[in-house]
Amino acid sequence: MTKKVALLIAGCGVYDGAEIYETVLTLLRLDEHNADYQFIAPDKPLAHVINHKTGEEVSDSQPGGAASRNLLVEAARLARGEIIALSAANPADYDAVILPGGFGVAKNFSTFASEGAACSVDLDVQAFVQAFHQAKKPIGLMCITPAITAKLIQPGILCTIGKDAAVEDAMANMGLLHQNCLVDGIVVDDQHKVVTTPAYMQASRITEAKAGIFKLVDKVLAMA
Amino acid sequence: MTKKVALLIAGCGVYDGAEIYETVLTLLRLDEHNADYQFIAPDKPLAHVINHKTGEEVSDSQPGGAASRNLLVEAARLARGEIIALSAANPADYDAVILPGGFGVAKNFSTFASEGAACSVDLDVQAFVQAFHQAKKPIGLMCITPAITAKLIQPGILCTIGKDAAVEDAMANMGLLHQNCLVDGIVVDDQHKVVTTPAYMQASRITEAKAGIFKLVDKVLAMA
Repeated sequence: MTKKVALLIAGCGVYDGAEIYETVLTLLRLDEHNADYQFIAPDKPLAHVINHKTGEEVSDSQPGGAASRNLLVEAARLARGEIIALSAANPADYDAVILPGGFGVAKNFSTFASEGAACSVDLDVQAFVQAFHQAKKPIGLMCITPAITAKLIQPGILCTIGKDAAVEDAMANMGLLHQNCLVDGIVVDDQHKVVTTPAYMQASRITEAKAGIFKLVDKVLAMA
Repeated sequence: MTKKVALLIAGCGVYDGAEIYETVLTLLRLDEHNADYQFIAPDKPLAHVINHKTGEEVSDSQPGGAASRNLLVEAARLARGEIIALSAANPADYDAVILPGGFGVAKNFSTFASEGAACSVDLDVQAFVQAFHQAKKPIGLMCITPAITAKLIQPGILCTIGKDAAVEDAMANMGLLHQNCLVDGIVVDDQHKVVTTPAYMQASRITEAKAGIFKLVDKVLAMA
């Protein structure tokens, strides 16, 4: 049976959306395994827009600001248009879920970027991911995404964002178990079927990110 | 000596900018070869903006329309911010140039999408690519980009967009020599050092695009 994976993405672009290279490497590996995938994103405004050339925030009132950009519509760029709204996605249709990273996870899927350990998470994203957890289906999280695992799923899960003291502190405060990990490695919580890799929390080049992401995809598919 | 490749991209997103998967596969293969690369894009407004979820054009006057999106700023998403303006790029700094595809090439780099064989090309893009040709440095073009080779470089160059009667007719009218090519192949004009592959003009999945794009990158680096 062909396995089908839900790719839940938080926009298109590392500073306000999904990390593009992580997402493309994920679907490349899925396709190498002949797995099916479906891009999924929430249909809501972007939390804010970052000018990726300057790193500066584009204010809501400026042309091209957040008021004019919808998360699902921007995420569709990364999916070549083949994407569905989270509200239309049924966890029962998929064997696993993978969330690439990017600041969009810390801004659009949660308030981690601004509130750290006190963050809240998008309730629809939470409900979708928890459905996989409850069904004992594997969950792959990469880059900054593992930082919110305690609120996305539950505390007590072993995961990694690589090595970053401030993020690790926030994760500990939320009740997560962090394990340091090199960029080309993965951390596996077999009990909870959660697989994590540092990706661009540690990667300085795309081949480094590829090494860990390919292992994550391999492991998620093996567990599915 | 490490080879350095200029990656000239036309935005971020298949329908109004650079094809994201083609671009990421290109830099992945460059990095696998330990080649350096530099993202480059013209600093000018996008020709127009397409809603990638619906496929519809976003009019200039709508929020998020073309008037509010700059090609260089949007392309920076695909480069994780590491991009320079075309006006600041010196062809002498690079051993080769590669242009991924996407409709942005037919809209922002040329008017091919609307005018076909009667199209004009962006003069700055043309001057940049022609500098490589005059210096006998290799040029890699993929997807729809080879269609404008006659005006981007000169007529009489052998290249491929895969197999598409309407595009082939336009290419012939501009004086190009077209050779049909499968998605996993490349066409090489040794005399002019131009390498082309169909990529998403033919690909139905990312592993198909990867096969041709990796061969293109390998050949361009071998010729550099």
